[in-house]
Amino acid sequence: MELKITAEEMTGFLDEVFPQVRGMFGIDRMDETLLVMRLFNDDKHLRPGGTVSGPAMFSLADVAAYVATLGFVGKESLAVTIHCSIDFMRKPVAGVDLLAEARVLKLGRALSVTDVLLFSEGTTQPVAHASLTYSIPPTRA
Amino acid sequence: MELKITAEEMTGFLDEVFPQVRGMFGIDRMDETLLVMRLFNDDKHLRPGGTVSGPAMFSLADVAAYVATLGFVGKESLAVTIHCSIDFMRKPVAGVDLLAEARVLKLGRALSVTDVLLFSEGTTQPVAHASLTYSIPPTRA
Amino acid sequence: MELKITAEEMTGFLDEVFPQVRGMFGIDRMDETLLVMRLFNDDKHLRPGGTVSGPAMFSLADVAAYVATLGFVGKESLAVTIHCSIDFMRKPVAGVDLLAEARVLKLGRALSVTDVLLFSEGTTQPVAHASLTYSIPPTRA
Amino acid sequence: MELKITAEEMTGFLDEVFPQVRGMFGIDRMDETLLVMRLFNDDKHLRPGGTVSGPAMFSLADVAAYVATLGFVGKESLAVTIHCSIDFMRKPVAGVDLLAEARVLKLGRALSVTDVLLFSEGTTQPVAHASLTYSIPPTRA
Repeated sequence: MELKITAEEMTGFLDEVFPQVRGMFGIDRMDETLLVMRLFNDDKHLRPGGTVSGPAMFSLADVAAYVATLGFVGKESLAVTIHCSIDFMRKPVAGVDLLAEARVLKLGRALSVTDVLLFSEGTTQPVAHASLTYSIPPTRA
Repeated sequence: MELKITAEEMTGFLDEVFPQVRGMFGIDRMDETLLVMRLFNDDKHLRPGGTVSGPAMFSLADVAAYVATLGFVGKESLAVTIHCSIDFMRKPVAGVDLLAEARVLKLGRALSVTDVLLFSEGTTQPVAHASLTYSIPPTRA
Repeated sequence: MELKITAEEMTGFLDEVFPQVRGMFGIDRMDETLLVMRLFNDDKHLRPGGTVSGPAMFSLADVAAYVATLGFVGKESLAVTIHCSIDFMRKPVAGVDLLAEARVLKLGRALSVTDVLLFSEGTTQPVAHASLTYSIPPTRA
Repeated sequence: MELKITAEEMTGFLDEVFPQVRGMFGIDRMDETLLVMRLFNDDKHLRPGGTVSGPAMFSLADVAAYVATLGFVGKESLAVTIHCSIDFMRKPVAGVDLLAEARVLKLGRALSVTDVLLFSEGTTQPVAHASLTYSIPPTRA
């Protein structure tokens, strides 16, 4: 599968459709096999103790799966999450960014399935593992 | 099972341990069979179009399962989410609060499993359905 | 929503499309709000110690969600499971049938979401809790 | 992490504790990073049309996660599945074995989390993706 959109175009598209999370996420890498997104370390997403909260981890997994899917579909589509299963496995490291590695396992006409692993930057053991299903609306002609 | 804590004590406890979400959630009902929590309608949690975002729905399901579990365990415990499966089924209604109905299906020594249905206030069809597993640390003597 | 098929028609339909599980499951109740299916106690589904195995519990949850969905869709549709999340919460009681209570939470044009609770017959604490998503193919004209 | 048991010992252990599935599964590869298990193609696990059924895919994912976990824990432990999330993404190829690639993402004192991808033999697109959590009982002294 080939990407239909670049990382720069995607960043502009995210800022446009989700202005409320502008500056919260960054795209580190975006190619046919892997998307890497970053949740910038920020007091707003923290639990007491300085680690990233569960909802912030969910947000990163969700946006990473969205971006990974739209990479192949293009920015004209309004995809919505229909399912997420997420395992929280380790406590994130305090004070560092959180990284998501997203891989699209299936891209059908109506649904995509994306595997996402979350890591605290600089570590190799995943802090969380998620699988997300997006519903992809039919392309308008 | 009997509750070990009242709704008022729980509200105070949440404010203390999660100051960053103070004022975001309310407890409508808390008894042995059902917990009802409310996510107050607020611009911060919204997607374009005014409906509640996926991460905000996840947050409500997560905190509802936490509160439902701690109701039976007491406020001394530091429970953490280890798993969440959530199905997003309908678009929330714009401009109204989101309600969570949480039921503890299992309360073991080390784990709880809680079923959560989310509704837009004033409607009867659930917008999302989640199951959350919490790890409950052993009580300190 | 109204049912499009009776329990008797459904039983005949299951025997026809899944002959390899004939006699394995029964329909105890089938109406607009609840489907109750039964996995007959049988040596084939057992773990050592005489309790029902995980795969047998999955099978019962899966067929219950299928039957609950087809009740509203009719027997002409070839629905397939696209997702299942299942929590195994308690050890089933040895030597008794397993019952599934299935409730369709969403019936869309393309997808259904069904909540399933599994019980050992004669007990009130669920042994497992599942949520299943079925893909419903468009009706052929 | 080092394995505490060889593939041969594991096969003998499975035959002993799950005699009812003897001959159903094989271990193709078992090392520190990856376990590959095989569900032998067999009429019993089939749907009409000759493809592997959902319950048979669940069984393979479940036993693969069990074996992958016990590889690091040793055969004295009685682990039980407490959660499985599985996405069924493609129709398995008829008439061939099904392979599971299992990777242990977390091995804690009380819980393991294992990622499993299922493939029809000879193909590269996964037919299903699962995440399984096992409860590991404390080692007896």
